[in-house]
Amino acid sequence: MYRSHNCGALRIDDIGKEVTLAGWMAVSREFGGLTFIDLRDRYGITQLVFDMEGSPDLCNQARALGREFVIQVHGIVSERSNKNPNRATGDIEILVTDLRILNESDVPPFTIENETDGGEELRMKYRYLDLRRQNVQEKLFFRSRLAIETRKYLAGNDFIEVETPFLIKSTPEGARDFVVPSRVHHGQFYALPQSPQTFKQLLMVSGFDKYFQIVKCFRDEDFRADRQPEFTQVDCEMSYVEQEDILNTFEGLTKHLFRELKGIDLPAFPRMTYDEAIAHYGSDKPDIRFGMLFCELNSVVQGHGFGVFDNAELVVGFCAKGQAINYSNKDIKKLTEWVQRPQIGAKGLVYVKYTADGIKSSVGKFYSDEQLKKWGSLMGAAEGDMLLILSGEAEKTRKQLGALRLEMGNRMGLMDPEDFKPLWVLDFPLLEWDEDSNRFHAMHHPFTSPKKSDIDRMLNGDHETMKALRADAYDLVLNGSEIGGGSIRIHDRELQEKNFKLLGFTEDEAKEQFGFLLDAFRYGAPPHGGIAFGFDRLCTLMQGSDSIREVIAFPKNNQGRDVMIDAPAGIDGEQLAELALKVVE
Amino acid sequence: MYRSHNCGALRIDDIGKEVTLAGWMAVSREFGGLTFIDLRDRYGITQLVFDMEGSPDLCNQARALGREFVIQVHGIVSERSNKNPNRATGDIEILVTDLRILNESDVPPFTIENETDGGEELRMKYRYLDLRRQNVQEKLFFRSRLAIETRKYLAGNDFIEVETPFLIKSTPEGARDFVVPSRVHHGQFYALPQSPQTFKQLLMVSGFDKYFQIVKCFRDEDFRADRQPEFTQVDCEMSYVEQEDILNTFEGLTKHLFRELKGIDLPAFPRMTYDEAIAHYGSDKPDIRFGMLFCELNSVVQGHGFGVFDNAELVVGFCAKGQAINYSNKDIKKLTEWVQRPQIGAKGLVYVKYTADGIKSSVGKFYSDEQLKKWGSLMGAAEGDMLLILSGEAEKTRKQLGALRLEMGNRMGLMDPEDFKPLWVLDFPLLEWDEDSNRFHAMHHPFTSPKKSDIDRMLNGDHETMKALRADAYDLVLNGSEIGGGSIRIHDRELQEKNFKLLGFTEDEAKEQFGFLLDAFRYGAPPHGGIAFGFDRLCTLMQGSDSIREVIAFPKNNQGRDVMIDAPAGIDGEQLAELALKVVE
Repeated sequence: MYRSHNCGALRIDDIGKEVTLAGWMAVSREFGGLTFIDLRDRYGITQLVFDMEGSPDLCNQARALGREFVIQVHGIVSERSNKNPNRATGDIEILVTDLRILNESDVPPFTIENETDGGEELRMKYRYLDLRRQNVQEKLFFRSRLAIETRKYLAGNDFIEVETPFLIKSTPEGARDFVVPSRVHHGQFYALPQSPQTFKQLLMVSGFDKYFQIVKCFRDEDFRADRQPEFTQVDCEMSYVEQEDILNTFEGLTKHLFRELKGIDLPAFPRMTYDEAIAHYGSDKPDIRFGMLFCELNSVVQGHGFGVFDNAELVVGFCAKGQAINYSNKDIKKLTEWVQRPQIGAKGLVYVKYTADGIKSSVGKFYSDEQLKKWGSLMGAAEGDMLLILSGEAEKTRKQLGALRLEMGNRMGLMDPEDFKPLWVLDFPLLEWDEDSNRFHAMHHPFTSPKKSDIDRMLNGDHETMKALRADAYDLVLNGSEIGGGSIRIHDRELQEKNFKLLGFTEDEAKEQFGFLLDAFRYGAPPHGGIAFGFDRLCTLMQGSDSIREVIAFPKNNQGRDVMIDAPAGIDGEQLAELALKVVE
Repeated sequence: MYRSHNCGALRIDDIGKEVTLAGWMAVSREFGGLTFIDLRDRYGITQLVFDMEGSPDLCNQARALGREFVIQVHGIVSERSNKNPNRATGDIEILVTDLRILNESDVPPFTIENETDGGEELRMKYRYLDLRRQNVQEKLFFRSRLAIETRKYLAGNDFIEVETPFLIKSTPEGARDFVVPSRVHHGQFYALPQSPQTFKQLLMVSGFDKYFQIVKCFRDEDFRADRQPEFTQVDCEMSYVEQEDILNTFEGLTKHLFRELKGIDLPAFPRMTYDEAIAHYGSDKPDIRFGMLFCELNSVVQGHGFGVFDNAELVVGFCAKGQAINYSNKDIKKLTEWVQRPQIGAKGLVYVKYTADGIKSSVGKFYSDEQLKKWGSLMGAAEGDMLLILSGEAEKTRKQLGALRLEMGNRMGLMDPEDFKPLWVLDFPLLEWDEDSNRFHAMHHPFTSPKKSDIDRMLNGDHETMKALRADAYDLVLNGSEIGGGSIRIHDRELQEKNFKLLGFTEDEAKEQFGFLLDAFRYGAPPHGGIAFGFDRLCTLMQGSDSIREVIAFPKNNQGRDVMIDAPAGIDGEQLAELALKVVE
């Protein structure tokens, strides 16, 4: 037996006990004739004491220990004279009577402390040491508990966890698949799943009624900031449900997770249509931790001789409370440059400041104070406030103003990561018209159902009608990030055929790509729908972390590379030959 | 809302309630002027009644329903006159007032009943319909509960579930990896993990202390009966433990699972060394549901002029209780042919029958009755019993007799699948000498620790000593199948270097193959060890199923093919070009 207690276990009640502990030598201090050592493990830190006078050999042995040495000690639990109220074991220390080195350690490349001296690159190369830091471990412990509570809630609501296969078939639609060459069937490949979508729908056909899985998914995309080629999804599907059933069930899950993990009782989640979200926030995932809703100004600003506004499809702005005093002309100029950067792409920025000295605006020469006052009253501006206004093509302008709104929210300190504001965004468009390819794309996926009230229009309407169709598709948004999304699926053949036709599939193409699912739908598919949560993202947001990499034990970098194990890597020629493959280039 | 209750919910107390149900039309019967329909969902079956006299339209509608149509009904819960005590809802039926077809169904290719008319090939092609059968669903529900209870026990014992990566690096040792070509880094590949072995050891270096994961693993082996290219493992690792700690923890897990899932309280698991298992059962995974232990006969059979025995390295047999009467000369001849098949490979079979008419034996002319009686008394044979004896090279003969023992156990009805007899097999050899390659192989894996008592001999012994070294490696065996296996790992550098040297690795080779793990071990690796359970196998055995395919939702066939989705399959040339790969042959 290596230990009688772990390093977080002992309390004042244990005084006098003989104990054996094991762990890592975190810090050593000398004080008079005493040597103090912080012994660390996952559960905490316990102070060890060695007395030079009483046991000089033992004390010298302790003084020779290096950082991160693995040791085992035997000793007596004693009361500390100098208690540490910030530590669970802070009332006691161990008077060590026996010390054994279990393993030595080289000097680690960075210190194993919450505030370390290691940069990200170094920490990722030595991720196993980075993971020894308490604040890094805690993110993973949180993740483990989040999975436990997710399973507890779903299993408690009759969901069955079913493992779906990882070696499946590549489909040309959607994002790119990772493929796995078959050695037995030369020239053939498995694909790694981007999601278990088709399998969960098959399980509904099978009558599983309520399915879930916490599962790894794979997407071979060009890497963007904070994307991982492998990611974890909480994947769910239910039968005999309408949208309302899904929203209630998964609002319940989300509330359960916040209650159990954060001690927060979230009130009922607000709901917003896609159209409202775009109109008021310029985004389908609005951050509603703060206001600054958009106000459209066309009717009051156009026809007064200011060409930029007169020729714009949309003039839209928001009111930044109390910001008039914070933005000098120089600051405004900088902010204008910020919205003009290619990432945002606005042409210019119009401001109106309501100050004690009067109204100031970049368009003051085109509009009277009376007119500018009217804009202010439309947008609820008072003295000290500042309007920020963009104009141009409607869709682009909303997006640009959305980015500016988030920037201002951030600058104004309105985006507290510990303030959690979930939101359902509903009624997404069913189809997106793609000008380039002159065809419709499914906004969610090709099995997403139109809203009941739109079914007639879908079956009988003209081309323009199709653009206006709304889907029973929903996203769960948290603080400006999508954490879940799903839809009610089509289970009616006529509707499915119409949808494929709209999406430009011939009957043969539909059969080739979705054959087994369409076959399955011939044998009594129940009404069904589902949702998938981005587990990495949810875990990141709930912990107020900056990046999903922080909540993944062994993440890949922005080039999809694991720098610790150095993967991907070459494989030997024999293995390639067995797969009947050759690298060409 | 599609339903107020599911099809397994209603009871006698619900009589008089207006309810809405939805489900599949399982069976329809006409009886006088009434039509009865069994409505099925995951939760059960509820009987619906339609009355031709009262509602002729509705009743005609019901009579027109096809098998597996998805319907919704509204009606009143009523008491059945003809109750069905075998069904939870058997006291009631629904007098239907409204019927709606939610979806039609083609005639399924086999009947959706526990005893179906579909063969395995057809059922696998339409696995989504096979999975609609109640007895098939139940195997998956059991699996879901088994995972829940596994997590409950481990999380309750401070284990943290950590997700390790799926896109890792290929290692040339061990079984063949599945590889995943990188599109971004041409000519480089990820590998799918055969197990998270190195990552779980890294997590111990990170101080995670107790890790587990229920995780898919991948092995590109030539397919054998009942092997799947992707399989699920309960993977565990603990720090600051000795073998005894691991055995206790996972014996506890196994007992918990049997208690919760089967209602069985297993007594303390017996333990047996590898050497004992081989000597007494001819197998390192003995089925101890029945006896028939081996008895070695060299000392009593040799030197009496029977050349076959005299020249054999080993003469060994067991006693089959009460079988003398069941085996005529013809039956013995058939049994002899059975052991002579190439799969077994014995040269011949010697029997001794103790009957009321005297002793009968194939070697009667070489041995006196007195001598044959002595064999019998050594093996505990009484009248009516039969000895079965093989001879030859020791290792092969034990294996052959092990196969014969299982065959006899099966014939004698001693292998009840609901009789669960777990067993720890301990003290496996550390190294296997491979005559062909003239080198040692690691019996478990290259980080497995020798037993403490063998460490000195390992560091200082000669070549022959190495063959006798025993490891802190253990298997959990259930009814003749290995369900778990693991070891205490080496955490000491000197010992690890010695082990690599014994295994024939140069320093460079060890570095290339296990570099990051060896690096990690330089920074304070704690003593640690672990175990991995074959989750599919455990689930199969606990349910008394014949094949792991029965407990996998979407299994692959013996050629590694998913016949439902038709994978693996060709991919298009563009995708191959992006990966810089060409199929050659």
